Amino acid sequence: METPLTPLEFARRSKKLYPERTAVIDGSIRLTYNQFFERCDRWSSGLQDLGIRPADRVAYIATNTHAELESFYSVPQIGAIVVPINYRLSASEFLYIINHSGARIVCVHADYLETVDSIRDKLPGVEYFISLEGHKEGWLEYEAIIETSSPCFTPYIVNELDIISINYTSGTTAKPKGVMISHRNAYLNTIGTLIHCHLSVNDRYLWTLPMFHANGWTFVWTITACGGTHICLRKVTTENIFELIVAEKVTIFCAAPTILIGLANADKSLKKRAFGSIQLLTAGAPPAAATLERLEHDLGWKLLHVYGMTETAPFISICEPRPEHDLLTEQELANVKARQGVELITSGELKVVDEEDQEVPWDGKTIGEIIARGNVVMKGYYNDLEATQKAIRNGWMHTGDAAVVHHDGYVEIRDRIKDIIISGGENISSVEVECVLLRHPAVMESAVVGMPHKKWGESPHAFIVLRDNEFATEDEIKEFVGQHLASFKKPKWVSFVKELPKTATGKIQKYLLRGNKYAIVKQ
Amino acid sequence: METPLTPLEFARRSKKLYPERTAVIDGSIRLTYNQFFERCDRWSSGLQDLGIRPADRVAYIATNTHAELESFYSVPQIGAIVVPINYRLSASEFLYIINHSGARIVCVHADYLETVDSIRDKLPGVEYFISLEGHKEGWLEYEAIIETSSPCFTPYIVNELDIISINYTSGTTAKPKGVMISHRNAYLNTIGTLIHCHLSVNDRYLWTLPMFHANGWTFVWTITACGGTHICLRKVTTENIFELIVAEKVTIFCAAPTILIGLANADKSLKKRAFGSIQLLTAGAPPAAATLERLEHDLGWKLLHVYGMTETAPFISICEPRPEHDLLTEQELANVKARQGVELITSGELKVVDEEDQEVPWDGKTIGEIIARGNVVMKGYYNDLEATQKAIRNGWMHTGDAAVVHHDGYVEIRDRIKDIIISGGENISSVEVECVLLRHPAVMESAVVGMPHKKWGESPHAFIVLRDNEFATEDEIKEFVGQHLASFKKPKWVSFVKELPKTATGKIQKYLLRGNKYAIVKQ
Repeated sequence: METPLTPLEFARRSKKLYPERTAVIDGSIRLTYNQFFERCDRWSSGLQDLGIRPADRVAYIATNTHAELESFYSVPQIGAIVVPINYRLSASEFLYIINHSGARIVCVHADYLETVDSIRDKLPGVEYFISLEGHKEGWLEYEAIIETSSPCFTPYIVNELDIISINYTSGTTAKPKGVMISHRNAYLNTIGTLIHCHLSVNDRYLWTLPMFHANGWTFVWTITACGGTHICLRKVTTENIFELIVAEKVTIFCAAPTILIGLANADKSLKKRAFGSIQLLTAGAPPAAATLERLEHDLGWKLLHVYGMTETAPFISICEPRPEHDLLTEQELANVKARQGVELITSGELKVVDEEDQEVPWDGKTIGEIIARGNVVMKGYYNDLEATQKAIRNGWMHTGDAAVVHHDGYVEIRDRIKDIIISGGENISSVEVECVLLRHPAVMESAVVGMPHKKWGESPHAFIVLRDNEFATEDEIKEFVGQHLASFKKPKWVSFVKELPKTATGKIQKYLLRGNKYAIVKQ
Repeated sequence: METPLTPLEFARRSKKLYPERTAVIDGSIRLTYNQFFERCDRWSSGLQDLGIRPADRVAYIATNTHAELESFYSVPQIGAIVVPINYRLSASEFLYIINHSGARIVCVHADYLETVDSIRDKLPGVEYFISLEGHKEGWLEYEAIIETSSPCFTPYIVNELDIISINYTSGTTAKPKGVMISHRNAYLNTIGTLIHCHLSVNDRYLWTLPMFHANGWTFVWTITACGGTHICLRKVTTENIFELIVAEKVTIFCAAPTILIGLANADKSLKKRAFGSIQLLTAGAPPAAATLERLEHDLGWKLLHVYGMTETAPFISICEPRPEHDLLTEQELANVKARQGVELITSGELKVVDEEDQEVPWDGKTIGEIIARGNVVMKGYYNDLEATQKAIRNGWMHTGDAAVVHHDGYVEIRDRIKDIIISGGENISSVEVECVLLRHPAVMESAVVGMPHKKWGESPHAFIVLRDNEFATEDEIKEFVGQHLASFKKPKWVSFVKELPKTATGKIQKYLLRGNKYAIVKQ
């Protein structure tokens, strides 16, 4: 007998079993699971009253608030699709995404009402604009609708392959693409997190990671599934994080590497108060050994390195702790924890392959592309068959990430495939060169890209932002890299720039560095 | 993108990630995952050489050995169906099950070769008889085939709704029925166990529970999924259990209540050596407070009460620990742990309903039937549509178990529905009366059934086996029950018997007690 695999099943169970447990804390607001789900149900019937039908899109622009969290239940349980938009984007990006998704309703947090008003006349498909907090001319009010709506909505019978959300990626080179996540995708990613993080009803999750980002790495459902507590964090600062960790007895949170550094370097008294058994998930650039040591030693926290992408719901690997890791030195352990790791129990198969689709040897050296297949891989990009077919080939999602496989089968990312520099037939990882550059005391930030070279085909070009009041010459920089890496990896050219071009989510736009503005004819 | 939900995916991952970890320990035999899966692959190609095709049945009669464990991989990965038979059954029951399942091959442990030989001429459908250990005239040898077969079998592309196993139940009243478990059933039950038991690569599982029993509560796959170690136990005795727990650093095992009592009452020196953080799953009658206290206090073990049936793959509830349980007294905690609990995160919905299919109130008093719906519910009984339709009605599996629901939503079984006694319009739980009888110092075992009564419709009749050298009168027994329960629950009749009729798995056959042999016309 089959019943659909959907995160709504977690909601059903938690509503039944944990009615009086705290579901959400958002500043002074505390909602039990009963209260939380009643709000979701009322908003579901409000949406139905506004004419939302199955498969319609409802877009959100909001920080980590209880209202944003409610969207992940109230929208899907009437069969509609939630479109959580990155609130850090520009008005023109909002415009593109809202129109591309075909959202009939847009729900917006107080901070972004003005911006959305500025593009309103270019959003012909949007029928209702909902203010999630506060009153503004021309906006319906979320709280008013919840108050007056019935908790009895007409439930939709989910098929597990229905779309639950469309998450727009922040393309570094192209227009945002809408990743279609099915109920089954979301369910199995949630399950994987529950298994590997050993979550239980005692868990209290701090919302440092934005909910719009791959549905908060699916924690919008994971924490509900285990009957834990969601603790909202509207503004991510080191002080706010420490304050809530102590006040709300946080047991788990996710954080980007830059946030980790801030936490690791915080004041000792702050750290002392926050000492405890906290699980910390991170992705992207792994923390340096020193940061890791401070987090684990000074704070007692346990760091878990995960990897994935919006297109894979998101997790496709985890740096699974092994008993043999207990025997490693601090530096060795940091090296292991820097790896993206191995597939989760439910995420499907992960391979690193060369251009002929053959698996690379597990030698820690040979670079290939990470590809993945399984139940967490998206249904495709919304209304973009071409991009879908480019990303999913022969049934495998091509991540575009270049990685090596270590002897233990643990994958470690070296670069984006397109950023690999091929110089005289040798692969150079731009990330590897950047990591060395960052060790130079004068370097604050750097980006290395391949530029055409008459003799070598391509050679590395380093773009560097210096620290305030620090100085370095081009030759110094080249020589510094030469001390740490093979000579062919030394940048042929070095440019000092005031800042690096970045997307709204902080990704460096290397294609701009390669483009006209920065291009020089090189000899 | 969907790939099938199947335990074979766990095998794929563990083969890749844990090749050198120990998969199985069986006496002096130790197999790494590499070795274990190579053996499975060789046997798969051996089976194909013998003509086994997808959907064919391969039956096993074996104790907990590595060969029995191998069946759960080698048979399904060629699309065939494993039929693990209870080795404690009689020759005529073997005969019935083998013929009913239509098995083309029967694999038998050394201890049962004789028995199977005795019915061989009545098994016309069986083409090959395989001896799993040792040589016997007329039997092919498992080890010889493995040795000579190629590890390259032709893999079968699984559909997740395909049948992975047929598990025959030991009916107390009828012929055994073949429960069809799909790959999806098995996968999601395994996932549920991983989530709720927080298993990891460090886990070492002791095989006290027979693998034939609902596929060892699916642990045949669960332990492999997390890369843990299976530790076989061929003969279940208190001494053997303690010995392996210490020698093999066991972290988890499952045990029936009678085994628990033996462990709790073991010698202090034995217990001292086995002290450690072990998870212990039990089902059926929950342990008494004293047993629980000994297990948790003397041994440091953590007991988890689970519930299910072969028809539900098997788990449909777990007595989930809650933070508030930490505040309970020893007796209160024992009362809570005696409950079957709540649905697992992946097991689907569980309800207790009255005869009109309405949920009973959560009052800890009103008795109804436990029904369940979800992805762990079997596909049906093999070749028995009538029984399937009787068990699964309106999409719900009817368990036949009578239970109450406590205020916290935790379910507690009171009886089998058909053993509930209705006396003067009042429900009497036969189990409740039996529990009181067991507290009487002279009573070793008891069974209470409803017998026709002119005035009350039915009244309780207690059948009692006395302890050696103990004595009690009918009146004493009645009075003893009257001291503890409402007077209408007192047995109207008491019979002292030498033994109670039981099935091969130890279930009391109450229908025999109600039948002619024991029947008396009652006034």
